[in-house]
Amino acid sequence: MSKFKFLLEPRSIAVVGVSDDAARPGSQAVRALMRNGYQGRIFPVNPKYQEFQGLKCYPSVEAIDEDVDLVVIGVPAKGVIPVMRECAAKSVPYVTVFSGGFRESGPEGAEREQELMTIAREAGMRVIGPNCLGFASIPANVYAAFGSITRDPKLEPGNVSLVTQSGGFGYSIALACAEAKIGFRHVVATGNESDIDTVEMIDALIDDPETACIVSYIEGTRDGRALLRVGRRALAAGKPILLWKGGVTEQGARAAASHTASMTGSYDFYRALYKQTGIVEIAELHEVVDYLKAFAPGKLPESNGVAVMGVSGGSAIVFADAGERRGLSLCTLTEATQERLGPVVPSIGALHNPIDLTAGYFSEQNKEKLEIALRAVLDDARVGALCVNLATTGPGGSAVAAEVIARVSGQYTKPIAVFSSTPPAANAAALEIFSEARVPVLPSPSRAANALAVLWAYRQARARIADAPEGDAIVELEADVRAALRAGRALSEMESKSVLAKAGVPVTRDLLVRNGGQADLASLSYPAVVKVVSRDIPHKSEVGGVKVNLASAEEVASAIEQISESVARLAPMATIDGMMISEMVTEGFELIAGVVNDVVFGPVVMVGAGGIYAEILKDVSYRLAPFDERTALDMLDELRCRPIFDGARGGAVLDVASAARALAALSRFGWAVRKEVQEIDVNPLFLSARGVVAADALVVPTAQAGRGEA
Amino acid sequence: MSKFKFLLEPRSIAVVGVSDDAARPGSQAVRALMRNGYQGRIFPVNPKYQEFQGLKCYPSVEAIDEDVDLVVIGVPAKGVIPVMRECAAKSVPYVTVFSGGFRESGPEGAEREQELMTIAREAGMRVIGPNCLGFASIPANVYAAFGSITRDPKLEPGNVSLVTQSGGFGYSIALACAEAKIGFRHVVATGNESDIDTVEMIDALIDDPETACIVSYIEGTRDGRALLRVGRRALAAGKPILLWKGGVTEQGARAAASHTASMTGSYDFYRALYKQTGIVEIAELHEVVDYLKAFAPGKLPESNGVAVMGVSGGSAIVFADAGERRGLSLCTLTEATQERLGPVVPSIGALHNPIDLTAGYFSEQNKEKLEIALRAVLDDARVGALCVNLATTGPGGSAVAAEVIARVSGQYTKPIAVFSSTPPAANAAALEIFSEARVPVLPSPSRAANALAVLWAYRQARARIADAPEGDAIVELEADVRAALRAGRALSEMESKSVLAKAGVPVTRDLLVRNGGQADLASLSYPAVVKVVSRDIPHKSEVGGVKVNLASAEEVASAIEQISESVARLAPMATIDGMMISEMVTEGFELIAGVVNDVVFGPVVMVGAGGIYAEILKDVSYRLAPFDERTALDMLDELRCRPIFDGARGGAVLDVASAARALAALSRFGWAVRKEVQEIDVNPLFLSARGVVAADALVVPTAQAGRGEA
Repeated sequence: MSKFKFLLEPRSIAVVGVSDDAARPGSQAVRALMRNGYQGRIFPVNPKYQEFQGLKCYPSVEAIDEDVDLVVIGVPAKGVIPVMRECAAKSVPYVTVFSGGFRESGPEGAEREQELMTIAREAGMRVIGPNCLGFASIPANVYAAFGSITRDPKLEPGNVSLVTQSGGFGYSIALACAEAKIGFRHVVATGNESDIDTVEMIDALIDDPETACIVSYIEGTRDGRALLRVGRRALAAGKPILLWKGGVTEQGARAAASHTASMTGSYDFYRALYKQTGIVEIAELHEVVDYLKAFAPGKLPESNGVAVMGVSGGSAIVFADAGERRGLSLCTLTEATQERLGPVVPSIGALHNPIDLTAGYFSEQNKEKLEIALRAVLDDARVGALCVNLATTGPGGSAVAAEVIARVSGQYTKPIAVFSSTPPAANAAALEIFSEARVPVLPSPSRAANALAVLWAYRQARARIADAPEGDAIVELEADVRAALRAGRALSEMESKSVLAKAGVPVTRDLLVRNGGQADLASLSYPAVVKVVSRDIPHKSEVGGVKVNLASAEEVASAIEQISESVARLAPMATIDGMMISEMVTEGFELIAGVVNDVVFGPVVMVGAGGIYAEILKDVSYRLAPFDERTALDMLDELRCRPIFDGARGGAVLDVASAARALAALSRFGWAVRKEVQEIDVNPLFLSARGVVAADALVVPTAQAGRGEA
Repeated sequence: MSKFKFLLEPRSIAVVGVSDDAARPGSQAVRALMRNGYQGRIFPVNPKYQEFQGLKCYPSVEAIDEDVDLVVIGVPAKGVIPVMRECAAKSVPYVTVFSGGFRESGPEGAEREQELMTIAREAGMRVIGPNCLGFASIPANVYAAFGSITRDPKLEPGNVSLVTQSGGFGYSIALACAEAKIGFRHVVATGNESDIDTVEMIDALIDDPETACIVSYIEGTRDGRALLRVGRRALAAGKPILLWKGGVTEQGARAAASHTASMTGSYDFYRALYKQTGIVEIAELHEVVDYLKAFAPGKLPESNGVAVMGVSGGSAIVFADAGERRGLSLCTLTEATQERLGPVVPSIGALHNPIDLTAGYFSEQNKEKLEIALRAVLDDARVGALCVNLATTGPGGSAVAAEVIARVSGQYTKPIAVFSSTPPAANAAALEIFSEARVPVLPSPSRAANALAVLWAYRQARARIADAPEGDAIVELEADVRAALRAGRALSEMESKSVLAKAGVPVTRDLLVRNGGQADLASLSYPAVVKVVSRDIPHKSEVGGVKVNLASAEEVASAIEQISESVARLAPMATIDGMMISEMVTEGFELIAGVVNDVVFGPVVMVGAGGIYAEILKDVSYRLAPFDERTALDMLDELRCRPIFDGARGGAVLDVASAARALAALSRFGWAVRKEVQEIDVNPLFLSARGVVAADALVVPTAQAGRGEA
């Protein structure tokens, strides 16, 4: 880790705002640094003191006669700005501001925060906070923090780093991990994030060789694209990110005083991002603990096949239930495996999966048998991972099992999880062995299943990492189309379909017949639709402006005549630009697709079941653009209506590959025109056995462009 | 508790199968009884011993010269039957059989189990097991058990009873509760359940004054109706049942070697039953712990409004997220409440819900303020329950908060939950105070929200308890219809609709015109449909046997003529019974409804979105028949398409009340004809602004009846 090395592991720290009041944040920080044996220099700052806790106390930052890597500021809000100026004068590289009274406290505070940032930017200083609990680097005994971070229990050193916007709740995560004996590297509470935010910190931690896993709690991000990049980088580096996003419901977002209106949508976008980056979504404290344990050995399953063995039938059933819900499959063991199991499993047990070793199996006299059983299962190519249910096996049997499992585990690359419900306090010997061997022990079979399922999902995300086209796709727009978009004018249906067709999204063919003009009706396939084209007629049907199901060129010609008459009669004042003749789609399942250019996430592609159910049943899936066909297939796979594509209810098998190509093309287009386009609606998009075709489309320019021209 | 009093708290216990091998189940039981200070008489039985553990050892059960309430049998399978005969000869009322080697081990074992049951039935003995871990009654120190139940840690006495089919996994639940210092009354592992099953045991425990809550793990039940009755009785008695059903997925059911095919459906029926009984569904160990803590004070919220106060914004957001998902609403506090909060909440905090007390609030100097704040919130009529987030507040502050919260909690009937992430080992003082006051402390804000949500759901179930009509509804069937059903003949569309109409389900009107006959076409409303009626023509449309959208009596007459001609030409060999003329439904949302007479649950009513989505999207809900309109409305509320009924997308507001009446009528009918009817399909059922009407229906008799006649 180079980027924030001397922020997170400073060689010297000045703390501004120490006093005899031990409760003062600055005092807490200095005491924590000293108590924990921080090895760098500590410079307490307070003009009223000569000495603090036996250290020389300085009247100001500038008065410190040595280089300072980090200044910690714990004075009341009003005093922060002068200290920032001193830091700038002294060319301090890093500052952490504990103090509240900034953006979160109203307009005056917001102004103060601006000023703080102006000073920092001009001096090239990087800032954590303000309004934060600070951070600790456990192995280096750095405590640039106050409050719970500095209190007992002291975290053990380890290779998990935690980055949290909320100090109070975020540190609850650290405490839950500490209870499970998980050690930490860096623990950072980012507070207002006026400079360094969660995403930038995670980015830096990916490059920290001592960080193996990153846990984060956020309430929002300013830049979803940065999170996407960082998530992909972490995936490539094999460093799992476990992310708890607070405020994902309307009520949660309101509590977070976030942008309520767009929140539901934006949670969908986060979830899309998780799928595209392998970021593990967290929604409960124990999940963090379980998944960190599961990731610790660095083993990932090569398939979703799991084997279960143990002494409790009920536990195997509960494992199977939870596993099915998360995509794990209790695989059928090969005959060879079952033959190997035969001699080492009691006759009243079961050799198939789940393997029933029968009650009381885990004991000294079964040690060798257990080892044979474990090897037989782990050698089976169908088995991607193994769960051993010790269940209520007592401390003695558990220790024996632990010894064997630990030994075998070390010789296989397949993940093994263990379920034990024996109280940890009574089970120290077994737990110690498991811990040494980094075999995760979970307190329920369902949690064991969930943990293995997370490993499998991560493994799949890793396999797909190459599939993410990035960077600008080259999309040539006609000059007039680009001009229209830049001018903030929505494209007409024909223009919209025309640009999408060029981008690779199949559309129905349209012909425009200008008033008195002729169209090449012979080139059209039938049936066809004719619609009047006029900006003055919003509801075409009401003035007889639409004729459908026209079987021939003759019927089209006649329809044009009828429409002209009807419109002339019912909308005599309307300016008529002409008639649009479109091929009519008569088959296929109705989808909708689209692109939303989200303020946080940029272009996001949506696809879903169309028609009346689109809005009500919300059978939709999302991905951040651009992406390739593999990802588009995933989107389609997520739809609840997916079985219809495979010919459910006796229907035809639909051309899913063509839909995936169209979605990938739409995503590249949405990405390429992200500066000009706010929204693209493709509705309906018909999917049939012969391909996919958009029957209508609308391209809406960014509101900004529109306002710019108006 | 009278029913099983001397089973669960026997005055004397004989244990057959003791030996010097301490690992033998019988030996374990006797040792556990003695170690735990069981106060009744203990009679070890083994002809080879004079004495066991200092007790007189008897050669046989019959040789015991005193009355024996309970005989525990721990001998190998083959020896069980002779011991059962001895028990019968001695008129022993209760037997517990630990031994395996019965139904679970193959045909020979199944025969042995039959024999065991025959002896028991003839002698009027009640049996727990075989193939079980036995049971313990903690306050009375009864340990008719072996294995984990008799091992450390010893469970504390309390008012929770546990009934589990799986000894191994079930006892994991007890251990998880023990870790959380939850005490137990009876712990029963029922094993093969050849006599006493989970449901009967739960039923008995409802009458045990010392049991306040019942936890159960089951893999299946033979009699879903018994579970329904017991669930309702427990709800009426205010004794929550927390039920973990294993094998709810296909894979889980396979692992349970259950009836895989019908499993998915049957999980739906379990879930329906939970809703009708207030049984709390469990799917993770910690849920049992959390919900038991939440139920312990016996307080239920009167509304879904919750208030949150604390020192961590992130915690409040996480609570809000979880609460929204479970139906809790962060209510708006009245102005009066906010005025009361004003003076006691720091100015940089927040008076609205969630209430931000600001970091460090929980301290000695804020004690009085905290009490005022708590009272202000609990006095607010909108607040049904309160969550206090201590989050990472240290032991000192937590103890202060605990003292105030405990005092205030004692004076209010509204439930209060506390979130604390301080490690329990360091937080003993606070936890002791909370425990004394039965204020549940949860380790995450989301778990606090889930626990309060369970209380609210239970409160709602209690409120509805009167709404469950039971017993036989009187349904008059025409003699010929009843005869047809009893004969196993499916009713025709007309017959089916006719019986449903009489039962109270609105149907479209049908007229049958027999060959050459006349119908009262003037009485019909139009448009109408004509279909040929013939058992020889399965696909009427293919022979021109259907005409739709007929606007008048004349068009109907002409259609009858055309159909007759067409059918005569295309199906000349078919016997034609006549023509059916039906009113055609031209408006409304298409639903499907039905009754399945399940082998476990009896008649279950289904309603769902119709059309192509019915099968694919599975937008359906279920309830066990019979039920009233209130329950029917709940079913409709569960459908994802529900917003359509309220006029989503600019449509009409549909007559939901009429649909509820029809479903309740269908449920009463399904219940009344449960002996004759296997299945009723009402498809489609059209719901419009003007009511509900079934356009087609089919009543299928029980297969048994059919076979009986064949």
